Amino acid sequence: MEAFLKHAASLKPKVATLTPETKNRVLHVMAQALIDSKDLILKANAKDMQYAKQNALSAALLDRLFLDEKRIESMASSIQTIAKLKEPVGRVLDGWVTDEGLRIEKISVPIGVIGIIYESRPNVTADTAALCFKSGNVAILKGGKEAFYSNSAIAATLRECLEKNGLDKDLISLLPDSSREGVANLIVQDKYVDLIVPRGGESLIHYVSKNATVPVVKHDKGLCHIYIDEIVDEQKALEIVKNAKCQRPGVCNAVETLLVHQAVAPSILPKIYKLLKDEGCSFYGDEGAKKFLDIPLATKENFATEYLDKILNIKVVKDLENAIEHIQTYGSGHSEAILTKNYANAEYFLNKVDASCVYVNASTRFTDGGAFGFGAEVGISTNKLHARGPMGINELTTYKYKIYGQGQIRG
Amino acid sequence: MEAFLKHAASLKPKVATLTPETKNRVLHVMAQALIDSKDLILKANAKDMQYAKQNALSAALLDRLFLDEKRIESMASSIQTIAKLKEPVGRVLDGWVTDEGLRIEKISVPIGVIGIIYESRPNVTADTAALCFKSGNVAILKGGKEAFYSNSAIAATLRECLEKNGLDKDLISLLPDSSREGVANLIVQDKYVDLIVPRGGESLIHYVSKNATVPVVKHDKGLCHIYIDEIVDEQKALEIVKNAKCQRPGVCNAVETLLVHQAVAPSILPKIYKLLKDEGCSFYGDEGAKKFLDIPLATKENFATEYLDKILNIKVVKDLENAIEHIQTYGSGHSEAILTKNYANAEYFLNKVDASCVYVNASTRFTDGGAFGFGAEVGISTNKLHARGPMGINELTTYKYKIYGQGQIRG
Repeated sequence: MEAFLKHAASLKPKVATLTPETKNRVLHVMAQALIDSKDLILKANAKDMQYAKQNALSAALLDRLFLDEKRIESMASSIQTIAKLKEPVGRVLDGWVTDEGLRIEKISVPIGVIGIIYESRPNVTADTAALCFKSGNVAILKGGKEAFYSNSAIAATLRECLEKNGLDKDLISLLPDSSREGVANLIVQDKYVDLIVPRGGESLIHYVSKNATVPVVKHDKGLCHIYIDEIVDEQKALEIVKNAKCQRPGVCNAVETLLVHQAVAPSILPKIYKLLKDEGCSFYGDEGAKKFLDIPLATKENFATEYLDKILNIKVVKDLENAIEHIQTYGSGHSEAILTKNYANAEYFLNKVDASCVYVNASTRFTDGGAFGFGAEVGISTNKLHARGPMGINELTTYKYKIYGQGQIRG
Repeated sequence: MEAFLKHAASLKPKVATLTPETKNRVLHVMAQALIDSKDLILKANAKDMQYAKQNALSAALLDRLFLDEKRIESMASSIQTIAKLKEPVGRVLDGWVTDEGLRIEKISVPIGVIGIIYESRPNVTADTAALCFKSGNVAILKGGKEAFYSNSAIAATLRECLEKNGLDKDLISLLPDSSREGVANLIVQDKYVDLIVPRGGESLIHYVSKNATVPVVKHDKGLCHIYIDEIVDEQKALEIVKNAKCQRPGVCNAVETLLVHQAVAPSILPKIYKLLKDEGCSFYGDEGAKKFLDIPLATKENFATEYLDKILNIKVVKDLENAIEHIQTYGSGHSEAILTKNYANAEYFLNKVDASCVYVNASTRFTDGGAFGFGAEVGISTNKLHARGPMGINELTTYKYKIYGQGQIRG
């Protein structure tokens, strides 16, 4: 493992200084190669699927794992999109001249060696490899064992493209030891690895955060709230709550708890109940909500649960301040929304709530690299430092200061 | 400890939303209060000094620990400088409108609860407390035990100012348990603490990095190089090398190893030797350097040592590429300089060398918040993520996205 990582680290200067033209050309080659290798990749995926079915993995997981021609084409088109993104390396982030006449430029540069740990979806292999390559980083990928053959076939295809274009194939590689011990070993190699990005279940994230000596940008849970304020466009509020809960309940930016101002609760709660019930939702409510709805009592545990399912907690609050208090207690700092016509309340909420994304009058579902217009995303960071919220390709860079002198010495 | 940190975390929304006017007014009150309390602070400092002398602490440490009226005035004036810095919270870092018409603003916000672990110099207590307060953060300070009485007196003065101005005094506090166990406990409280900034010796930094579950921005060693290229202004090169090695050898941005192109070695090495010898320097050299200078042979260990003293390694290199190779092997990614008249070589060096600060034709000693024009600094980060290099008040903020909608739902 150490030799493998040492070699990866040794490639940093090479990939960091590739021209945008080279990188984009190779990315287009990769996109084409995925399509040309589709038989190979589908065959590998069939092996994974067979194994998964034998092991009775869930239908949701099988769906995430499954590849067909269309999904391979979409992988290829995603790499083409990444090729078209604005060059992330070498952006001038800031610049000034000091009192002594030194010219300082703050410039975006690659991070170095990035380890990405993820599960099931094989397209993540292609996406993250392409994002790392475009941003001048060396990618070490560790997918789930359920996708082993698919990931291996995809990575082999991409690596071949590197080699055919005169680049070191190890700019993109799968972690050679993909066992739990392999991961444990990877995350403490701060001498060679510059960043670990874990995407997956809570136990993986917790394990990596707790044990890594390499810096971690984690992608874990979202316990999101929508607060319906005293004066609100009721029709829009209904649509937003429905969208945030039901459009795709299994993702981190879906809403889990609805907070409703007491003044509008009598009118809006029965409508929300009916609307979401028709979508197959079930509910838990506090005493205030139970006055209007015949639903089970919500416990503290309910309010602390990321359901990832069509289940909604409902709580009636006295005012905005109470809503914010609940959010600060139970929220995960992911996405929080206020629905209101009141300017002062909107401003107060946006400023006071501590979360990566705070919304007024929109669905929390927009917390997403695609919806933000990033073109492609690494994930949604739940870190507070380095990258917060939707993480695009620019967040795969750090910066350095270039200082241009004419012989200056310090006085 | 948990109750203490929980209380600190509960103050986050309050300090995050203070107006710049309030913060700056209170900072000016603090500056004046330090001057008004000078007798008290000097008395406390005398106790620390007496204890330090009894325990035979080094002269350098005694000097760092010592306070007099002038040093207290300088502490006060540093707080006034911080009050005058541009408001770090609420800066619009980016902003755009998405395809769906959502208006997104990326806004700087405080990080939250920041734990700062540092040694000896009592002015760090005042500086970092003021920087955290101005940037809307809750500060938990853990100074060295040798400065216990001084730090306590300074913190008490600042806390009284908070209270007298209607703010919670616990916005600034000393870690109640300042033992090793106290630190061990602090750095795993990721539920309440958002950032740990360790400044100090290598063993402290290593311990914190290895054991913390809270994100860490570390401030450790600098193993800096100057490379003298083939075509160079010899006189300026001599001045820069002397400045980088001798002006203040005990700091992280001083140079430790000089790399000299073989073409200029015969001419420049004897001059450098004489110039620095007169300043009290001693030397180690590789075989190439020893051809011109009668100095001991530099081992691998020499090249890997941050001397923090008037000792310089000298190595003669074949060319720029060799110099960069040496820097990538031994450098700590802090500050690296090339001295050259050659445009292409300057550009190549600046782009290729992976360090927080890369210089052409200037002393590495400029890597410093003050020299960069930041007004006041938290320190010099040796992290690659979040903050890299001189860390000013803006690096005590993170960001959030504010998203302004008109009823948008995700399609």
